[in-house]
Amino acid sequence: MSEVKKAYVRPLDFRHGRIDMNHGAGGRAAAQLISELFAAAFDNEFLRQGDDGASLPLPAGGRLVMATDAHVVSPIFFPGGDLGCLAVHGTVNDVAMMGATPLYLAASFILEEGYPLADLRRIVESMAAAAREAGVAIVTGDTKVVEQGKGDGVFIGTTGVGVVPQGVQVGGARARPGDAVLLSGSIGEHGVAVLSKRESLEFETAIESDTAALHTLVAAMLAAAPGGVRVLRDPTRGGLATTLNEIARQSGTGMLLDEAAIPVLPQVEAACELLGLDPLYVANEGKLVAVCAEADADAVLAAMRAHPRGARACRIGSVIEDAHGFVQMDTRFGGRRVVDWLSGEQLPRIC
Amino acid sequence: MSEVKKAYVRPLDFRHGRIDMNHGAGGRAAAQLISELFAAAFDNEFLRQGDDGASLPLPAGGRLVMATDAHVVSPIFFPGGDLGCLAVHGTVNDVAMMGATPLYLAASFILEEGYPLADLRRIVESMAAAAREAGVAIVTGDTKVVEQGKGDGVFIGTTGVGVVPQGVQVGGARARPGDAVLLSGSIGEHGVAVLSKRESLEFETAIESDTAALHTLVAAMLAAAPGGVRVLRDPTRGGLATTLNEIARQSGTGMLLDEAAIPVLPQVEAACELLGLDPLYVANEGKLVAVCAEADADAVLAAMRAHPRGARACRIGSVIEDAHGFVQMDTRFGGRRVVDWLSGEQLPRIC
Repeated sequence: MSEVKKAYVRPLDFRHGRIDMNHGAGGRAAAQLISELFAAAFDNEFLRQGDDGASLPLPAGGRLVMATDAHVVSPIFFPGGDLGCLAVHGTVNDVAMMGATPLYLAASFILEEGYPLADLRRIVESMAAAAREAGVAIVTGDTKVVEQGKGDGVFIGTTGVGVVPQGVQVGGARARPGDAVLLSGSIGEHGVAVLSKRESLEFETAIESDTAALHTLVAAMLAAAPGGVRVLRDPTRGGLATTLNEIARQSGTGMLLDEAAIPVLPQVEAACELLGLDPLYVANEGKLVAVCAEADADAVLAAMRAHPRGARACRIGSVIEDAHGFVQMDTRFGGRRVVDWLSGEQLPRIC
Repeated sequence: MSEVKKAYVRPLDFRHGRIDMNHGAGGRAAAQLISELFAAAFDNEFLRQGDDGASLPLPAGGRLVMATDAHVVSPIFFPGGDLGCLAVHGTVNDVAMMGATPLYLAASFILEEGYPLADLRRIVESMAAAAREAGVAIVTGDTKVVEQGKGDGVFIGTTGVGVVPQGVQVGGARARPGDAVLLSGSIGEHGVAVLSKRESLEFETAIESDTAALHTLVAAMLAAAPGGVRVLRDPTRGGLATTLNEIARQSGTGMLLDEAAIPVLPQVEAACELLGLDPLYVANEGKLVAVCAEADADAVLAAMRAHPRGARACRIGSVIEDAHGFVQMDTRFGGRRVVDWLSGEQLPRIC
C-alpha cells in the first residue's frame, strides 16, 4: 500500500503525461485528474462542494432556460480559438438566444486514451478563461476515458442554465411578416478558420474564428427594445441560410434577404471561392441573427452597433408572408433566388 | 432541386439505414433525424418549441441542482439495460443524490458514422421510456456525427436539473461521527452484467444490471426523516468502496463497515471470484448509500424497505472519527482491514 500512497502524491505530469484508462475509472487517478486539473482551473464555490452535482441558488426571473451541446470540433486548436473556449461560447450563446442571462455551465469530457495532458490542460484553461470572461461558473462535471481509436482526442459536452428576465419573450416561432431581420456582423469566419487549419491551407490574410460569447450583446438589445426582439439565433452549423430557414419554418413565414447587405470579409469570400463553399452555409460562432418588430429595428440596430460584438451589425432583410416558408434573396446581380436548406455535407465537425 | 425535395420527404430507413456525416451537419438530414427520431420519441411541450434551448417554468423550492454525465458504456446493450436507459438513470440519480426532485434532462449525442439507425432507435426509445417512467422530460438536445473510427457507436451526454425542497440539506461533507451508513440493496450487479457481456461470458444464473431511477426512493427517505438524511450517493464507477472513501474525505471522518452486512447476490459473488474482481469496487446503477443521524436511522431504513428499490436495504456500518479519512471494515473472518480507494483500472467504460 505504501507504493500506492507514493504514486498518489506524485503530481500529474503535465509536460509528458498522457491520459490512460485509469483516469476514467472513478478511483484514485480520476480523483487526481479532477482535483489537479479541472477543479483547479474552474474553481468556484459550487464546484468546491465536491458532490456529484451542484447545489445552486434558485434564480429569480420569468423562465428557466436550458441548452446543451456536444462539441467535437476538428482540429481541436484552430486560428482564433480551440475546443475549450468554443464549448463555453457555444452553450452560453444558445442560452442567450433564448433571451436568457446565462448563469451556470455543466461540462462533461470524453477523453481518448493516450491524449497528451499538456494539450488537455491547454483546452481546460481556455475553457476556464472563456467562462470567467463570460461571468458564468462551470459548476459540475464528469470525465470519461475511451480506448485509443474509440474517440478523437477530446469531446466536450456542455449544458447551460440561465434565466429569462420577466417580460422577455423570445423564440424561433415569433417572427411576423413585416419584421426586420438583423445580423450582428460578417459571416463565415469560424467555418473557414477551422477548415483551413484542417486542410493545412494558408491564406495571405489570416482568417480567425469569430468564437465569442454574445450574452452581453443580447442584454443590450433587449434593453433597447424589451418587447421588440422576437427571435434571436446564432447561425452556427449550417450557417446563416440554415438558421433563417429554421426560423421561417418555425414561424410559418418567409424571408426576403438582400445579398448586398450581408457582410462577408474579403479574405473569407476569397477562401470560400477557393474551397467551393457558400459563406451563407458556413458556420459562425460569434454572430447572431435577430428578428425585430419593424418599429424597434432602428433602436435594436443602434444598440448592437454600440456593442463591440455588434459593431458591423446591419439589416439584411425582412420577414414576409409565405406559407411554404421559403427564404429568398435579391442577389447582387439583380435576380431573386431561393436560399434553400443545406442539403449535403458542408463542413462536418465544425463545432 | 426537385431531387433534393424528393430525398427530403423520404422517411428515414430505420431497418437498413446508417448514420452518415450529413446527419450531424446541421442541414436537412440533421433536421430529419431530429424530427423523425429524437423529437418523436421524447415528445413534450418544451422540446416541441424547436429552439436551440428549452424555456421552462422556473421551479419553486430551496435550491437548484445541476448534474451532468458523459455515458460511454461498452457494450451499448447489456443484460438488464442499455446506454439509453442508463443515461437517464445515471443523471436522474445524480440529481436525486443532492436531495433534489429531478425535473428536466438535456441530452447530447455523439454518433459514429456508419452506426445502424435501427440500433440508434432502440437506444433512443429506451431512453424515452426511462424518462417517461421517471417522470422527467428530455427538454433539449444536440446531435453530432464523427467519422468512422473517431467514436464508438454512440456516446450520450445527459444533464439534469432539479429542485431541492425547502429545508432539505444533503451533501457529501455532512457525515458526522456516530451517524449510520445505510445501503439500499445488493452490490455489483451492473458492473458484472456489463463485463460479462463485454467478455462474452455466460453464467449459469443470468446477472442483470440494476440500472434504475432512485428519486422516488430518495423522496420516501427524506419524507421519513427530513433533517436526518445527511449524505446520499449512488456507488457507480469505483463501487461502494470508492463512494465511501469520497464521503469520508469530504466529511473529514472515517467509516467502519461490517462486511457480513453488505449484501452481494451469490451469482455476483461467484462471477467476481471468476473475474478477479472485488464487489466492493464494482459499479452499481440502481443502488444508493445514505448517511443518517443515528436517531433517524431506523425510520429511514423502514422507509427504504417499504420502497421496491430498497426492499433489501440494510445498515452496513457507522461513521467514526478519523482525521485520515480511512474506511475500515470488520471482515467475515473476524479481522479488520482498510478499504482503500480504487487504485488501478477496475472496469473501464462501465457507464
